[in-house]
Amino acid sequence: MAAPGENLRINSDRLWDSLMEMAKIGPGVAGGNNRQTLTDEDGEGRHLFQKWCDAAGLTMGVDQLGTMFARREGTDPDALPVYVGSHLDTQPTGGKYDGVLGVLAALEVIRTLNDLDIRTKHPIVVTNWTNEEGARFAPAMLASGVFAGVHTLDYAYSRTDGDGKVFGEELKRIGWLGDEPVGQRKMHAYFEYHIEQGPILEAENKQIGVVTHGQGLWWLEFTLTGKEAHTGSTPMNLRVNAGLAMARIFEMVQKVAMDNQPGAVGGVGQVRFWPNSRNVLPGKVVFTVDIRSPEQAKLDRMRASIEAEAAKIAAGLGVGCSVEAVGHFDPVTFDPTLVGRVRAAAEKLGYSHRNIISGAGHDACWAAKVAPATMIMCPCVDGLSHNEAEEISPEWAAAGCDVLFHAVAETAVIVD
Amino acid sequence: MAAPGENLRINSDRLWDSLMEMAKIGPGVAGGNNRQTLTDEDGEGRHLFQKWCDAAGLTMGVDQLGTMFARREGTDPDALPVYVGSHLDTQPTGGKYDGVLGVLAALEVIRTLNDLDIRTKHPIVVTNWTNEEGARFAPAMLASGVFAGVHTLDYAYSRTDGDGKVFGEELKRIGWLGDEPVGQRKMHAYFEYHIEQGPILEAENKQIGVVTHGQGLWWLEFTLTGKEAHTGSTPMNLRVNAGLAMARIFEMVQKVAMDNQPGAVGGVGQVRFWPNSRNVLPGKVVFTVDIRSPEQAKLDRMRASIEAEAAKIAAGLGVGCSVEAVGHFDPVTFDPTLVGRVRAAAEKLGYSHRNIISGAGHDACWAAKVAPATMIMCPCVDGLSHNEAEEISPEWAAAGCDVLFHAVAETAVIVD
Repeated sequence: MAAPGENLRINSDRLWDSLMEMAKIGPGVAGGNNRQTLTDEDGEGRHLFQKWCDAAGLTMGVDQLGTMFARREGTDPDALPVYVGSHLDTQPTGGKYDGVLGVLAALEVIRTLNDLDIRTKHPIVVTNWTNEEGARFAPAMLASGVFAGVHTLDYAYSRTDGDGKVFGEELKRIGWLGDEPVGQRKMHAYFEYHIEQGPILEAENKQIGVVTHGQGLWWLEFTLTGKEAHTGSTPMNLRVNAGLAMARIFEMVQKVAMDNQPGAVGGVGQVRFWPNSRNVLPGKVVFTVDIRSPEQAKLDRMRASIEAEAAKIAAGLGVGCSVEAVGHFDPVTFDPTLVGRVRAAAEKLGYSHRNIISGAGHDACWAAKVAPATMIMCPCVDGLSHNEAEEISPEWAAAGCDVLFHAVAETAVIVD
Repeated sequence: MAAPGENLRINSDRLWDSLMEMAKIGPGVAGGNNRQTLTDEDGEGRHLFQKWCDAAGLTMGVDQLGTMFARREGTDPDALPVYVGSHLDTQPTGGKYDGVLGVLAALEVIRTLNDLDIRTKHPIVVTNWTNEEGARFAPAMLASGVFAGVHTLDYAYSRTDGDGKVFGEELKRIGWLGDEPVGQRKMHAYFEYHIEQGPILEAENKQIGVVTHGQGLWWLEFTLTGKEAHTGSTPMNLRVNAGLAMARIFEMVQKVAMDNQPGAVGGVGQVRFWPNSRNVLPGKVVFTVDIRSPEQAKLDRMRASIEAEAAKIAAGLGVGCSVEAVGHFDPVTFDPTLVGRVRAAAEKLGYSHRNIISGAGHDACWAAKVAPATMIMCPCVDGLSHNEAEEISPEWAAAGCDVLFHAVAETAVIVD
């Protein structure tokens, strides 16, 4: 056969069973998972994954950040491998699918190729990146970031968790410090299958998200300085009201985001008032504006506009205003050839699909710096993620895995 | 002499020295005081006050809530006493003047009468109310509230602090549980001298605030229910943004307060977001709107308007909105005769003055329920209070005490 036919499907039950089996390790308190990176539970999850890889005939490599690369040989010794993966670590109150689906679906692609005795020209490497979540050791996407040259190895090793434990020591402690230098592998392509973590696919009843871009992001932390004053004895005309300035900035951020449709978002998730007492107008208000867009120019325009307007709003109320950029990613444009291959696979398989932009960061965003890369998404219930109640259906999981199978097999080139 | 002449002044140095002496008890960490109610430091402050009262020839009565009543006899055995006082307890990071000035100025009035050998028809009772601040045992103005029939004695006894310690037990522990039933005293009048705790007098360069009213208050605690969602992967049109609803309610509260000028205020001091994470739109936002006005009808109109508009704002964004009134005082109109007497005294003494409304709650607001009552205010630097940096000048302190002296002496009726 020259290419996988329309009739080829992955084994949906096996994929789901593997997801449920992995979810038994590091159970959460409310039905989800707590398998944070470099904990004993992470180690246990890695062993189970390795056992499955061994059973599938894969060869495991582990790099100096503990990232696991399970290789199925290709027929051409000179062909670069196709990498397919995501992460097995979870948030402290995480779900069973965020990341895990991408790793176990990659494994299911291998298992299905094995079942069908299909050989590919390019090797295929199932990948489990260390510390994607960043919940225990900030920042997120740490190992893939070092792999892509965004961070140094020493930077990664020196990260500490809330208890003061050090990344490098914890990696050694759980026994997953490998020998392989980080980032020396060359990739023919990188695929990552992930739950959407947003509400679009479910709302539009689409089975497949064809991920064309990763949003760029700015986190703008504003500090507003008002005059701490009694809410009762301070007349309206003598107030220096940092809370009111904040409210006006919220409304302005909303307007900037709406003015930059389609695709742009802007909002605020974190707010702190000082002294945060019912009868004291705040002397200090700190909040972080999160803006995202898949277009670099638009993203930078939004940032400039928000900073300029916020300064005007604050000045109009006599409130001090400073802003610090505390987080940033450039937008990512995924490889058009791979994106087209994902779309064609969904089409061929008869799955409803739409283009989608990844709003969250993923290892694929860093991998895209060093290889042609793309992602596939499936819906998740109510857009819920980073939450133990995160849920998908076995059918959703399988449809995306079918698309992954066809796109990967085509990229790795099936040989007779 | 028939009345104190324009030449009579209190002893400014003695008043200031007493303030500084009291401030040595329960020093704060930043130059102010931490002499919270029913602590050892409160007990020590009470002993110093009692020593001074004894030296001034006063007779001390202590009620079952520990409120101290130091009496100077009048010449008419049937005449009801004029009460003059405030509180010696402070905030955890409080100033040296909030409350203390009112008690020690009352004592200075007595000392001056003694110096001048002036007798009055009515007795004068210097009063130190227990637990005005409410910082350790909520609510504020507790003992005066029981005195005025707003709370029961058992309610007061059962209050607990953050460590679970009980008011009644702590009162006994520091040795200031008296025998006298609370609220049985009848008052000819009640005067309270206090720092403004606001910026008006200083801004307008006035020495004396003639307090005509106490503002009424509503604390409206809003709970907004949005949809917890990823800031990146949730498009603008699928957001249920409780933070944005909050911002619009802030702006609306500002408008309602401005529409109800003069005298009304409205603002927000306390805000909480859940989960309060940079990349999660809040699922829940709780904040308290503080609105005040000296006019009952206006206050109630403001409340109704804010609740109706907030419901519309929330509904327009699909956000759930509930509101609970978590605090309330009726407005207080102070006794016009006493208010006129304070104004006339300031005028006679040549002190600049203006009418002012007490924005904060004071023991005088409860005393006004059971007696003709009023207050006198002096400026404080930058309107700052409930803060260790709270500051007044000796001249400001003395001017208000002079006015207090003349108004009290006239009310108690000087006899030859």
